Amino acid sequence: MRSGLEEINQLGIDVRGRKESFHLAKVRAYKTTEAIGPCDLVLIALKATNNDLLPELISPLLHETTALLTLQNGLGNEEFLARYFGAERVIGGLCFICLNRVSPGVIEHFDYGHLTIGEFTGFPKPRTQDIASEFKRSGITCDVVENLMRERWHKLVWNVPFNGLSIAAGGITTQDILQDDSLRLSAFRLMDEVILAAGACGNRLPANVAFEQMKRTETMGAYKPSTLLDFEAGRTLEVEAIWGEPLRRAQAAGASVPRLEQLYAILKSLNSRRQ
Amino acid sequence: MRSGLEEINQLGIDVRGRKESFHLAKVRAYKTTEAIGPCDLVLIALKATNNDLLPELISPLLHETTALLTLQNGLGNEEFLARYFGAERVIGGLCFICLNRVSPGVIEHFDYGHLTIGEFTGFPKPRTQDIASEFKRSGITCDVVENLMRERWHKLVWNVPFNGLSIAAGGITTQDILQDDSLRLSAFRLMDEVILAAGACGNRLPANVAFEQMKRTETMGAYKPSTLLDFEAGRTLEVEAIWGEPLRRAQAAGASVPRLEQLYAILKSLNSRRQ
Repeated sequence: MRSGLEEINQLGIDVRGRKESFHLAKVRAYKTTEAIGPCDLVLIALKATNNDLLPELISPLLHETTALLTLQNGLGNEEFLARYFGAERVIGGLCFICLNRVSPGVIEHFDYGHLTIGEFTGFPKPRTQDIASEFKRSGITCDVVENLMRERWHKLVWNVPFNGLSIAAGGITTQDILQDDSLRLSAFRLMDEVILAAGACGNRLPANVAFEQMKRTETMGAYKPSTLLDFEAGRTLEVEAIWGEPLRRAQAAGASVPRLEQLYAILKSLNSRRQ
Repeated sequence: MRSGLEEINQLGIDVRGRKESFHLAKVRAYKTTEAIGPCDLVLIALKATNNDLLPELISPLLHETTALLTLQNGLGNEEFLARYFGAERVIGGLCFICLNRVSPGVIEHFDYGHLTIGEFTGFPKPRTQDIASEFKRSGITCDVVENLMRERWHKLVWNVPFNGLSIAAGGITTQDILQDDSLRLSAFRLMDEVILAAGACGNRLPANVAFEQMKRTETMGAYKPSTLLDFEAGRTLEVEAIWGEPLRRAQAAGASVPRLEQLYAILKSLNSRRQ
């Protein structure tokens, strides 16, 4: 932990949820990864904007078969880990959860809470199933998927338009987007571009995915995407992972994504002006 | 004048320029157009967002051949006047000037200062030349053009990207746009869309117009477009005249303008949230 270590070691962690609240009295937190030493599995939940710290952070945790599971957002994180530590170590995961850490030891849980994991290269292995079983034994729903990248693109179909427009259009909720004809259309068209890009990159998504995501969004109410909360709190946005890398892959694959290109330019500028 | 009438009538108007400054001691300002009565020529410089006031404001000024010269920004203002007062009355003009009204009677003049006028329907008439001559006699450069709409589209090639992105990307200058590769590309692509739209609407622009405009912008330095100043001062943006109406005409003519569509949605939202 980079901050709050003493508080955690003394007081533990409080999880306050709508359905259940619980207290973890004994948490093993460490100031450095050297203090942890080699592990079988490393979960990576660092913000992608801090990936440059990972090579140094991860090295002390490795033994010969240590697996690295990145739970980070967007595209490019598995590739980053593979470059430094070898592709065979890398597993990716998508978190479907709404929470806020309100102080070092207090987590507010709003909604959802399941994981989807998959191997970075090739099909699920025995270890993938083993990790999923560990999560399930801890009470966390965890699915194993055959094609991790398709899942990542699938999630981007929602994140690209709704996280992006909620910031660019002035700090608005998903409901504001849906209730404004122009923004709603923009969201739909951005979804189409992401679906096109996913297909061009070899990850064909179901035909009705945009429609399904739109329907799902309608039940969310006045929801503020996590990146909007980050933006409002003055935290750095994961612009490259969520918009930049998908844009570059789309263009490399020859997909026409003019709206994504423009939205990326706007968000990158907004982000750089608040650092 | 809706405000500042007494100040103007007592103190006149100060024009403070980089090249010349002068004082108009006697200004004939009026509270209502009824107090003016019928004129030969009405210059319309109201913000396009207040066009709904024009039918009532203009009626008292009309005699049988009164000409209406709109100096407003963007597209749709001539059509608006034509709908209420007949197309034959309507002349349009483009102002190329940088100024700021800092108080009711004080105007700061930064740069430029010429007019381009043209008939709304058909070629220039004797009256068009007469009006241009009046301006020239007052020391104001004024050109008469054969195709007013082409001039309007030409001006939009600059206004759509630079006024738009300077606001959407976080209150930045034209220089900031040019120095950021992604924003510079976005500006170029938006220019291409406006040129395409102009052509689809029957107003073919010179092939090198985007390049010329870009070059011209490079010499402007850290310039803040007028709509950005409006936005920062909390004033309403002319979103429909500059982005909305061009978008609708492009789409009606079958031109593909995805970036303009998205930029319009974002600006409309930003604008509506500060009213």
